[in-house]
Amino acid sequence: MNQKQHSAPVALRSIHVTDEFWQREMELVRKEVIPYQWEVLNDRVKDAAPSWCMHNFRAAAKLMREKKDKGATFVAPTYTFRGFEALPEDPEHPEEDRFYGFVFQDTDFSKWIEAVGYSLAVHPDAELEKTADEAIDLVCAAQMENGYLDTYYIINGMDAALTNLRDNHELYCLGHLAEGAVAYYQATGKDKLLRAACRYADFFAERFGPEEGKCKGYPGHEIAEMALIRLYEATGEQRYLDLSRYFIDQRGQEPNYFIEEEFARAAREGKTLRAPKGNMAYHQAHKPVREQDEAVGHAVRAVYLYAGMADTARMTGDERLFDACEKLFNNIVNQKLYITGGIGGTHMGESFSYPYDLPNDSAYSETCAAIGLAFFTRRMLQIKADSRYGDVMEQALYNTVLAGMALDGKSFFYVNPLSVVPEACAKDERLQHVKPVRQKWFGCACCPPNIARMVTSVAQYAYTESEDTLYTHLYMSGEVDKRFAGGAIRMKTASRMPWDGHVSVSIEAQKPVSGTLAFRIPGWSGACSAKASCAQEGTQTEMRDGYLYLTGTWQEGDGIELDFTMPVRMLAANPRVREDLGKVAFTRGPVTYCAEEADNGDMLHLLRVDAAKVGRDGEGVAVEMEEKFGHPTAALVVPGYRAVLPEAEGLYAAAAPLEERETTIRLIPYYAWANRGLGEMSVWLRG
Amino acid sequence: MNQKQHSAPVALRSIHVTDEFWQREMELVRKEVIPYQWEVLNDRVKDAAPSWCMHNFRAAAKLMREKKDKGATFVAPTYTFRGFEALPEDPEHPEEDRFYGFVFQDTDFSKWIEAVGYSLAVHPDAELEKTADEAIDLVCAAQMENGYLDTYYIINGMDAALTNLRDNHELYCLGHLAEGAVAYYQATGKDKLLRAACRYADFFAERFGPEEGKCKGYPGHEIAEMALIRLYEATGEQRYLDLSRYFIDQRGQEPNYFIEEEFARAAREGKTLRAPKGNMAYHQAHKPVREQDEAVGHAVRAVYLYAGMADTARMTGDERLFDACEKLFNNIVNQKLYITGGIGGTHMGESFSYPYDLPNDSAYSETCAAIGLAFFTRRMLQIKADSRYGDVMEQALYNTVLAGMALDGKSFFYVNPLSVVPEACAKDERLQHVKPVRQKWFGCACCPPNIARMVTSVAQYAYTESEDTLYTHLYMSGEVDKRFAGGAIRMKTASRMPWDGHVSVSIEAQKPVSGTLAFRIPGWSGACSAKASCAQEGTQTEMRDGYLYLTGTWQEGDGIELDFTMPVRMLAANPRVREDLGKVAFTRGPVTYCAEEADNGDMLHLLRVDAAKVGRDGEGVAVEMEEKFGHPTAALVVPGYRAVLPEAEGLYAAAAPLEERETTIRLIPYYAWANRGLGEMSVWLRG
Repeated sequence: MNQKQHSAPVALRSIHVTDEFWQREMELVRKEVIPYQWEVLNDRVKDAAPSWCMHNFRAAAKLMREKKDKGATFVAPTYTFRGFEALPEDPEHPEEDRFYGFVFQDTDFSKWIEAVGYSLAVHPDAELEKTADEAIDLVCAAQMENGYLDTYYIINGMDAALTNLRDNHELYCLGHLAEGAVAYYQATGKDKLLRAACRYADFFAERFGPEEGKCKGYPGHEIAEMALIRLYEATGEQRYLDLSRYFIDQRGQEPNYFIEEEFARAAREGKTLRAPKGNMAYHQAHKPVREQDEAVGHAVRAVYLYAGMADTARMTGDERLFDACEKLFNNIVNQKLYITGGIGGTHMGESFSYPYDLPNDSAYSETCAAIGLAFFTRRMLQIKADSRYGDVMEQALYNTVLAGMALDGKSFFYVNPLSVVPEACAKDERLQHVKPVRQKWFGCACCPPNIARMVTSVAQYAYTESEDTLYTHLYMSGEVDKRFAGGAIRMKTASRMPWDGHVSVSIEAQKPVSGTLAFRIPGWSGACSAKASCAQEGTQTEMRDGYLYLTGTWQEGDGIELDFTMPVRMLAANPRVREDLGKVAFTRGPVTYCAEEADNGDMLHLLRVDAAKVGRDGEGVAVEMEEKFGHPTAALVVPGYRAVLPEAEGLYAAAAPLEERETTIRLIPYYAWANRGLGEMSVWLRG
Repeated sequence: MNQKQHSAPVALRSIHVTDEFWQREMELVRKEVIPYQWEVLNDRVKDAAPSWCMHNFRAAAKLMREKKDKGATFVAPTYTFRGFEALPEDPEHPEEDRFYGFVFQDTDFSKWIEAVGYSLAVHPDAELEKTADEAIDLVCAAQMENGYLDTYYIINGMDAALTNLRDNHELYCLGHLAEGAVAYYQATGKDKLLRAACRYADFFAERFGPEEGKCKGYPGHEIAEMALIRLYEATGEQRYLDLSRYFIDQRGQEPNYFIEEEFARAAREGKTLRAPKGNMAYHQAHKPVREQDEAVGHAVRAVYLYAGMADTARMTGDERLFDACEKLFNNIVNQKLYITGGIGGTHMGESFSYPYDLPNDSAYSETCAAIGLAFFTRRMLQIKADSRYGDVMEQALYNTVLAGMALDGKSFFYVNPLSVVPEACAKDERLQHVKPVRQKWFGCACCPPNIARMVTSVAQYAYTESEDTLYTHLYMSGEVDKRFAGGAIRMKTASRMPWDGHVSVSIEAQKPVSGTLAFRIPGWSGACSAKASCAQEGTQTEMRDGYLYLTGTWQEGDGIELDFTMPVRMLAANPRVREDLGKVAFTRGPVTYCAEEADNGDMLHLLRVDAAKVGRDGEGVAVEMEEKFGHPTAALVVPGYRAVLPEAEGLYAAAAPLEERETTIRLIPYYAWANRGLGEMSVWLRG
């Protein structure tokens, strides 16, 4: 690992994104999603499922207050929660002392405050900050004296706390709380929530670990692993790194904690359990993480774990752990990644399917999983700048992550299929998880706030830095400040990504400063040229692992011109992917394309691409800029055919070449699909 | 309807099947299935789920005996059945007084006795008949004095009888009992079971009907409709025809009986029901049957209903009812029929899917549904000899029905997919209903005994008769006796179907007899020639609706030579079928073919048929007779290619023509698949 060049995300406050493409997304989140989400957290949106999140914090805070007032030892009511989601018997009149919603409902707040933090970092907003501070006061008021902070158990009874780490998300709540607290602290400098998060982390740090008598558990839904590293990086407290590493080391060891826990829980309830019911692979707990080489189980959990593994590998120099990350990354890329950057082939367990099983219509490809893949790959980049990681990160971000949100920021996809036929979604219960239009909000609302925190912090996926190097992984117009040993520079980028491959970089500096600027060469680029116009001669140029390193002394007026050719690419899947054999898909730059009924009529399966006319370099495809979706977008116009339906009824007839008529097939970016009402969509076309 | 020529199945005792192909199947049923099934009915097969069928009859008979002994009014124990399938707490020691198994478990006996009846009709067997008589004694001993005979309610409590016609199968039990009773009576002349069935039918006839105060219900799982017609035909009792017609007329009328019943049941249990939970289309009760024009819902129930509708239409001359049958038949043929003669595109509700939705890997295509399709189409033939019906009947019988049973008669398919990848069946829970190998027996064992009764009575699908015409719908070697007004003839058929299209017919007659012999011209035949060598001149030849009618005076030594060309047919599906676009399937004669891994290696999706070499009339395909499956079978050897897997890992690359190597693709009859261990199978191949 020593040869690797570690880097850290550049602080959001040091970046100013002016990029047309991303600004639009960020403004959507700031103006639409964050305010809407706050209303949802407070159950004030009529046509959305209530979150119960702030209700639960209020109920827990009330309990804490009562305890303090009475000076008595706090005894929570008996454990009475039944079922997976608790709902009030009379939805109009919830009881103020009860817990409602899912066991992980606290995280609705944590994800919101994280997005708020990122937003405030780049766009101060006193009113929003005031709202956030008040919310933080309430959340902190709900915390127990010993640091515990999960309203589900605080309200329902602490006697059952820590008895079901596998399913009940206490550590998941810790993780999101820590991530939100760090973001808010870094944006505002206010540490109240950060201290609460630390106290909650300390609660676990005191009780979990290899020492005798301590709990040997780890998160059922991973996230605490990477969150603890953020807490470590924000506070410098070694115990958070140690706890993260413990969780990672302990996961999947024998005897399996989750199985032991299940038996203990059954015994506690007076039941006899013949065999454990849990699926350890679902939780990535089927074997120690360093022995894992296939991405399995719940896809979001998996990539959250891998992100934490990469963090810990970076922090501890653990080569075996990095190797496991590398194997898992390769496994995803070689066998389990949709061309949209999505992961998770099956809705059963929201999981990775078996190798090369990438169904298009029944894809799960959860928005959060693509976000998690960006988490993982950004962390791999932090260990080693290798464009393989950057390519996948970019692919996930520009396609499935953005597809998760409507272009007006008001509705969301949880599942991101690569092929949709509305009739099938309506009538085929096998596709009941696939929605042909985005939904307002979900009771289990992981994806919308996850998009919010990803989009508002996207600049941290664009830029990371080490002491002597500023890395550019993604191209977006804006400015980034970098302090080298000899002084500071401001690097300005002008780019029309993802529509154009030309990137202009200019330097502002009060005095000449030595340092390295590294730029990712995207894998989609057919060829690239780079021209550095430095005032001083002697700039060293090096290509390594898909990154262009320019080392020199930078001063005011220096410029770098990068030209990435951006051909239309007609791609085919590995023939092992049964679903896609005989089909092609189109990408251009980082954008994956799809055909929609709005442009091409229904029965998209009747379309066929004229591969010969498309040509080897996509030269037969016209790229047309249009404003159809409220911002400049490149559409592709592909030469092809449409099969003519026979007039005769009847299912089977002598095979004959299909009667076809020539047509052009209009493709739009995948992220923009389903913004024009109900209709068919398909990424893969017969070719 | 008056122009139509009604016909009835020729009595099994008048037919002697010597056909090599069908004899083998019938002998399997006689020697393997019927004895095995009897063991299962008595829970004596160690590695099969217990049936509990005879156990339940014993328990019910004991209750009846006790009632008689005590002279007291019978009071059944309180209704205590919980859940869908009742299982003993200790499987080793079931309680002798309790009901176990599914609510329809009585029908295991009824289906068995029906197959026994058919078998005894053509193959007397004193020991089997003795066993059957004893079983009948037991069943009859379980019958209540009022004629009621469903052990589920007799044992669990009559207070709940007739309260859930939709789900609890009392009328389904009636139907199977009547079918079994008629078959046994016609085979042996013994009417004990027939009288019991009549008493049970009378129980309903007295309580159901349009008259005020009578129950307005009808079967939740159809079959009684056609069974009552058989009872009517066997006994001449008009009330059975009336009851069948009532069930058919009443189905789907408003107010909907099943919904009313559900509300009543809830009220009876003190519950408040906001909305009914039942899916009326699942039960074909969403609208009156004469208004139905799309085959929907549970596929077996649907075709059983349609068979009953056709019976009643024939019996009553109801043109509107026949029109509905015709529309439903056309809907199946034009939108919902697999090329294997299977129906039911989705396992959700074991149902027809929406039009043109015919997935291959997740197909349901239940064996019983194909059998039901044969019931329906045979009954349509009885109304009107039209080869369209005969073609579908033949397609169902030679393919999906026979595929339901292993070639050794010892294991069975419930679900008949058109494409199988064992890894997908094992790892993809969406395919959990699909088994890549046949199973020994099922707890819900409808299919194995259904195959048994279908195969043993297949001659009745080959021959029907009206007063002046003997119809041959299927070709199989053997003899059939026909009595015309002027005397009797014996028609001998020699055929090597399904492998050869030549059919020789010869006549035995003690004196010249006038009459019509009608032969179906199969739709798969490219061309056919018929040559009648009658001793007397003047035989009239007429082609009508795909049947060749030969009317003349027949006498000893007359012969008819039929030559049906039997080309290899390479078929394509209607382009509306998304799953099959760009693919081809092969048939020859009535047989649909498939590729198996045993002949072609794995990853069958890599195969591609060379359509040009196959040629318009399949002349490029070699037909090879082989004995691989224990009897002569024609394999097809198709010219084609296999895509070569790339050495490089990675999922997506620039689209380029697939690298392929030439190969021959060996196809075997679909009915013979999965007899050589675990492996892939596919009916449709890229073409």
